[in-house]
Amino acid sequence: MMQTRIGYGSTKAQVSLCYNQEVPRRFHRFFIIVIPDAWLLYHKVEIQVLWEEVYPCLMRYGHFYSFMTSDDRLSNHQVIINLRSMNNILSFDKVSGILVCEAGCILENLISFLDNEGFIMPLDLGAKGSCQIGGNVSTNAGGLRLIRYGSLHGSVLGLEAVLANGTVLDMLGTLRKDNTGYDLKHLFIGSEGSLGIVTKVSILTPPKLSSVNLAFLACKDYTSCQKLLSAAKTKLGEILSAFEFLDINAMDLVLKHLDGLRDPLPSSKHNFYILIETTGSTESHDKEKLEAFLLQSIESGLLTDGVLAQDINQASAFWRIREGIPEALMKAGAVYKYDLSLPPEKMYDLVEEMRGCLGAEANVVAYGHLGDGNLHLNISTRQYDDSILTKIEPFVYEWTSKHRGSISAEHGLGLMKANKIHYSKSLETVQLMADIKKLLDPNGILNPYKVLPTSVLPQRGEEEPKKEA
Amino acid sequence: MMQTRIGYGSTKAQVSLCYNQEVPRRFHRFFIIVIPDAWLLYHKVEIQVLWEEVYPCLMRYGHFYSFMTSDDRLSNHQVIINLRSMNNILSFDKVSGILVCEAGCILENLISFLDNEGFIMPLDLGAKGSCQIGGNVSTNAGGLRLIRYGSLHGSVLGLEAVLANGTVLDMLGTLRKDNTGYDLKHLFIGSEGSLGIVTKVSILTPPKLSSVNLAFLACKDYTSCQKLLSAAKTKLGEILSAFEFLDINAMDLVLKHLDGLRDPLPSSKHNFYILIETTGSTESHDKEKLEAFLLQSIESGLLTDGVLAQDINQASAFWRIREGIPEALMKAGAVYKYDLSLPPEKMYDLVEEMRGCLGAEANVVAYGHLGDGNLHLNISTRQYDDSILTKIEPFVYEWTSKHRGSISAEHGLGLMKANKIHYSKSLETVQLMADIKKLLDPNGILNPYKVLPTSVLPQRGEEEPKKEA
Repeated sequence: MMQTRIGYGSTKAQVSLCYNQEVPRRFHRFFIIVIPDAWLLYHKVEIQVLWEEVYPCLMRYGHFYSFMTSDDRLSNHQVIINLRSMNNILSFDKVSGILVCEAGCILENLISFLDNEGFIMPLDLGAKGSCQIGGNVSTNAGGLRLIRYGSLHGSVLGLEAVLANGTVLDMLGTLRKDNTGYDLKHLFIGSEGSLGIVTKVSILTPPKLSSVNLAFLACKDYTSCQKLLSAAKTKLGEILSAFEFLDINAMDLVLKHLDGLRDPLPSSKHNFYILIETTGSTESHDKEKLEAFLLQSIESGLLTDGVLAQDINQASAFWRIREGIPEALMKAGAVYKYDLSLPPEKMYDLVEEMRGCLGAEANVVAYGHLGDGNLHLNISTRQYDDSILTKIEPFVYEWTSKHRGSISAEHGLGLMKANKIHYSKSLETVQLMADIKKLLDPNGILNPYKVLPTSVLPQRGEEEPKKEA
Repeated sequence: MMQTRIGYGSTKAQVSLCYNQEVPRRFHRFFIIVIPDAWLLYHKVEIQVLWEEVYPCLMRYGHFYSFMTSDDRLSNHQVIINLRSMNNILSFDKVSGILVCEAGCILENLISFLDNEGFIMPLDLGAKGSCQIGGNVSTNAGGLRLIRYGSLHGSVLGLEAVLANGTVLDMLGTLRKDNTGYDLKHLFIGSEGSLGIVTKVSILTPPKLSSVNLAFLACKDYTSCQKLLSAAKTKLGEILSAFEFLDINAMDLVLKHLDGLRDPLPSSKHNFYILIETTGSTESHDKEKLEAFLLQSIESGLLTDGVLAQDINQASAFWRIREGIPEALMKAGAVYKYDLSLPPEKMYDLVEEMRGCLGAEANVVAYGHLGDGNLHLNISTRQYDDSILTKIEPFVYEWTSKHRGSISAEHGLGLMKANKIHYSKSLETVQLMADIKKLLDPNGILNPYKVLPTSVLPQRGEEEPKKEA
């Protein structure tokens, strides 16, 4: 068993520090950390040795993935590849808004850089201070701006990836239109590092618009929330930039467990709360549109109450309620978390059925990106309990599958849900994914046991016979 | 040699009529037309026989592709698959704006359907009256709305495809967010039917906004055009829906060859003309933004002249100038056409260098989607002449490659440019494309000789030995 090993492109001291921060002591014997810099990665000096030795490689882009779970399959000679040293911005074109950077850039640093140039990133996440853009791309991160700027499949224009055999795949185009052959970059967006290591990214960034407004609203029932979404898409059209919801259980939880927050609509309790954000180029126009929309929605009975943020502090306080839910859930005790995509009209039926199943045993809390059909379903209990879990699973997956939803909307399958992929994807599609995995990573060294079920891949140590004997 | 053969899912009379319309008489002995309906396609009743006999299949989605070129390799037993009978709209969700339809739906019919529902298609093309959505998706069609709504990789949410071995791949999700495994639908978007037959499509459609405005503008030089684009992105921000350009040569050609058109800015000639379209939800706001933007641009010297369309007839007349250029080029004589993506700041350098090379021998005409970095470079001559062609090619491809542009921005490589893919894609990337083609279509029966160069694929008749003997 090896204890530590020099990372690449860093001094021994740096690696040791990083090693201690990243890997809990009890795992020290299992992991090697590699922090490549660009030159070493591309010239394959030593990293190829690791690949040739067929050590499983675990990608790390700022966050821990789920690989710290105590899985017996991940017990020896793991290589953690951390791209933190590859954090250069390579170019930015102010006419087209196209940014090219290395994959280790921290999202928040890119946001700051673009802010100075008058642009924004097309994605924003709570974890922006620590996550790296390569990880965002590899996991197809969603976040708060998806309703306006779409997914990374639309805004990532190109990337560079290193394959399992060390081949550097240069697909780092900076063009909005390019129909020359198959658009292979999409294989690497959302494949969670299991097909290759994303090392550079080219991304289309929208111009920063000066007017941002936020409303905190209340609806009496879920049908009204849906109708409000339809109306917002038409009436606010081009300026709508977020449409988030939380239910009364989520609101109560936040107000109970987080300090310094107060109910923006204190006169009475409501079943549902909605945050609507608008972003546009002209403050007076946006205010006029938003106020007219709100007035009309109150008159038509869609809204029961609402308030517009008067300044940036109030806007932050409103966002804190929505973004503070995960923290409040942690404080409340044990929590079973599900990140689901469902057709909007069906979404809340699941929450109500779940409440029916669990009764007083648990607090079923629902919130999420309603504008994108993305429900974060959380089941909060005093402590983890297998008898509760058996009431939740497989019910929640079967229900989602029956309504052609996704059992992982924006978080990815990782290690824990790889074997559940069939709830959302057909047998034939999963088989083709496995064929592509075998084509790109025949030894299965990149993020093993993740994304795809073991049933469709050769097991490590019992690889299929090599084709060229 | 067979003369005709009954198509599937149609009567003999229908097929015969369609056959005579689609296939010029001199090709009759070469082609079999298959018009599957859904049932037959999915149940693989007879179509599988064709696949098993390993006839090359040519996809047809409303338009002829380039397969009518007299290529000796395409001489026998061709199967044309036309999905025109699969033209049903399967569902439409008014809350999410998600449309699910069969691949044979004509784009214009979808546009009309959505118009009644208060939505629009995220793409619009001159050929909308005849092209089918399956073809749009298979060729990753661009068009006029890309600057606003992005590419089909962003708006297509799911699709169903039939693979070369008859497997039906159900990836027909209707979710905006779904991170369960590799997003394989992207392999079929833009692969020009060479990996599978797209049979159903799920697409996110934006709400129809009531206010549309159009300005016809003039700039003195190309630098001003670029600065105007930057300014439009910031000042018009969320309402900008088209930014098209044509140069003086294009304008002269249109005014000379097309009847009933007049110069919207007749007081003097200008080097460059720009069309800016805005689309928004509130007419008064949009007008105010656009007028302020135009006034400021004239004051700052970016614009030398300009006019706002006063009604829908004038708007149509402005668009007719831009959209009439291909027709005017045809009337002017021979034309060498190139559809290129280039970084906007470099784009017009190529046009000027081309003029330098050709001198008085040819009229070099430039127009395109400047907002997307997409140049349509057209070289108009009295007649086709190899001595002119040798001055254009490979120069234009080499120039584009040197500046990391795309030699086919929105039209695809087809048969004629398959061997030119290396100008825009790296060797390693093309090799991986070939590996994926071999994985999905080992006998090379789907749109053979298209997209990928013959050098990276086994030749027909000299297939690689089967892996399982």
